[in-house]
Amino acid sequence: MRILGIDPGTHFTGIGVIEVSGNACRMISCETVAVPGKLSLPEKLDRIYRAILSAIREHNPDQMALEGFLFGKDIRAVVRMGEARACAMLAAVQAGIGIFEYTPTRIKQAVTGNGRASKEQIQHMVKVLLGLKAAPQGDGADALAVAICHGHEHRRTEMLGRKVLSPV
Amino acid sequence: MRILGIDPGTHFTGIGVIEVSGNACRMISCETVAVPGKLSLPEKLDRIYRAILSAIREHNPDQMALEGFLFGKDIRAVVRMGEARACAMLAAVQAGIGIFEYTPTRIKQAVTGNGRASKEQIQHMVKVLLGLKAAPQGDGADALAVAICHGHEHRRTEMLGRKVLSPV
Repeated sequence: MRILGIDPGTHFTGIGVIEVSGNACRMISCETVAVPGKLSLPEKLDRIYRAILSAIREHNPDQMALEGFLFGKDIRAVVRMGEARACAMLAAVQAGIGIFEYTPTRIKQAVTGNGRASKEQIQHMVKVLLGLKAAPQGDGADALAVAICHGHEHRRTEMLGRKVLSPV
Repeated sequence: MRILGIDPGTHFTGIGVIEVSGNACRMISCETVAVPGKLSLPEKLDRIYRAILSAIREHNPDQMALEGFLFGKDIRAVVRMGEARACAMLAAVQAGIGIFEYTPTRIKQAVTGNGRASKEQIQHMVKVLLGLKAAPQGDGADALAVAICHGHEHRRTEMLGRKVLSPV
């Protein structure tokens, strides 16, 4: 199964694609889209929407996994993240791809075993789990992490012989 | 000038179109899109996006005016409104239409002269200003109100002989 992971943001949006087969998973692509600060907000959102649609067309993923909200953060940051998330959801639903959502804590837990892992620990485990030579950086690494998290969850529910995953 | 007003929300989205010519403005259309609660969030966002895109295609507005944030409200409500707003902005930017934003207080002020006007006062003034036989209801009325607010601002800046309106 091919999974598109998205770490949405209006400054940078991480886009990662992995291929999961049994216990093995490998990286297909990893990208951090830098959204130019001089663009208007609608232009930024359009840039994010198009980047995700283009990744879907290029890599043909079966499902998309998104980082969910951190409600404790600054409200303006939460709103901006929500707008970027909306673009990701629109691109995926228009491409007919199932969408799944994970909290930052759950992603850290799935990737490192520790729900409070640091950015460096996450990047290290993403490198190990995908058999990469170097640790991926920035929001691209976070996008791979959410894709890996969804891969784990998907496999866990398959092994349990039941469908417990429900799309957003 | 033809203005598309949007009152975005994931339960109901108001879509209103007015035509402004000098001091006169008339209603072209007013619609409250009810988003079925049984849809998933991405499907809801897609429904909103398509409804707005369809209104743009049908009525060919020159500019779009959006209701801005009420940051004081429940954070989940703010996030949901942000997601709906993102869909509106995407639809408009993809159609090449300028996007303007007004706070609820400014909209109430422009339409009724009172920044704390009630829903009934707004609906009454929307009816009067557009020369309607009955007061429009629900989110469609709010969408007409934001369109009227933008029409006023646009005319005011034109009369002042300078361009003070800046798009989002």
